[in-house]
Amino acid sequence: MKGIFISIEGMDGSGKSTQIKYMKDFFEARGHSVLHTREPGGTAIGEKIRELVLNNDYQEMSDITEALLYAASRAQHVKEVIRPALNEGKIVLCDRYVDSSMVYQGSGRGLGYEAIKSINDFATSCLTPDLTILFDIEPQMSLQRINIGEEGDRLERETLDFHVKAHSAYMELANMYAERIKVIKANRVIEEIRGDVEQLLEKLLKGGM
Amino acid sequence: MKGIFISIEGMDGSGKSTQIKYMKDFFEARGHSVLHTREPGGTAIGEKIRELVLNNDYQEMSDITEALLYAASRAQHVKEVIRPALNEGKIVLCDRYVDSSMVYQGSGRGLGYEAIKSINDFATSCLTPDLTILFDIEPQMSLQRINIGEEGDRLERETLDFHVKAHSAYMELANMYAERIKVIKANRVIEEIRGDVEQLLEKLLKGGM
Repeated sequence: MKGIFISIEGMDGSGKSTQIKYMKDFFEARGHSVLHTREPGGTAIGEKIRELVLNNDYQEMSDITEALLYAASRAQHVKEVIRPALNEGKIVLCDRYVDSSMVYQGSGRGLGYEAIKSINDFATSCLTPDLTILFDIEPQMSLQRINIGEEGDRLERETLDFHVKAHSAYMELANMYAERIKVIKANRVIEEIRGDVEQLLEKLLKGGM
Repeated sequence: MKGIFISIEGMDGSGKSTQIKYMKDFFEARGHSVLHTREPGGTAIGEKIRELVLNNDYQEMSDITEALLYAASRAQHVKEVIRPALNEGKIVLCDRYVDSSMVYQGSGRGLGYEAIKSINDFATSCLTPDLTILFDIEPQMSLQRINIGEEGDRLERETLDFHVKAHSAYMELANMYAERIKVIKANRVIEEIRGDVEQLLEKLLKGGM
């Protein structure tokens, strides 16, 4: 594959979306073709699966079913969207990828990293990002920033405990995969964060991660 | 768990349904409470997943996505239906279970037994039948017996090659798991088959598989 695959991780409210926009600008200014995607990534099958997972009518959904549905959606996303773009030599910016499942299903739901890694290795045929940028924010701040209303979907209604657990899981993963996952402190002014991200991207383009 | 878990396998047209009815009669005549189920097993989530897998609009579905969706549906079926029934001491007769995925996804789609076993071990938390009865029928006969019309779903429209492959895969599994999987030749008169099945069930009730 000729492209570069970058996943972006971090809790809701970590400012991921803004930085992804800047990352896109960064690569395009250097003449690269960029695909910005996130699950379900515009696949019709992924949309259907997402509807099912986030539907509040299905409170009886088992954690294992949920994890398998996320993996199924990802499998389709990789096949239809990510791999073709990489084969065309594009830079793929993917908002959340396997690490999100490691955090929310592996740690959050207590299914374990090993099981989640195993089903996702199957789902993605072991397609791993060249670089993962983790925007790190304190769980309390993440909760303040996202507005939890009546309409919040199942995931958003989880408690602070869940956010605290997710935060430590992200830190654990950053330790386990220190070569791939780079942590950027996200409780700072936007331009500062942008600067740090662009340093990482420069390094990546020079082949020096 | 106090119940007994029996899965019934074999290709469409093998006469499974008739024999399952007799098996139910057999156990009920002996005072057992029986649950007859099949995926999606009456779970709302399983129904939704099944709709998605069998929908002819989604021809772009990857084989890996399909395998993960079947596993997700099974996870819900095990949690909502099979485990509770076994915990209540029931005899569970399940029309198709993990072996079907081994045959149709592992061999048929070429994903391999190991990968399919691994995602299904996760899906079922390793819940394995006490006995699997495989109704064996020649693939040519199976194809003759099922009526393939315009309305046939995606799976039913597969070719004879696929049926031939499925047949050998079933035979391979019967060899790999000879302790659990008992093969019954299904190209015989119904009452003869019934007699052989009942012998197996008698043995099972005496704890002597």
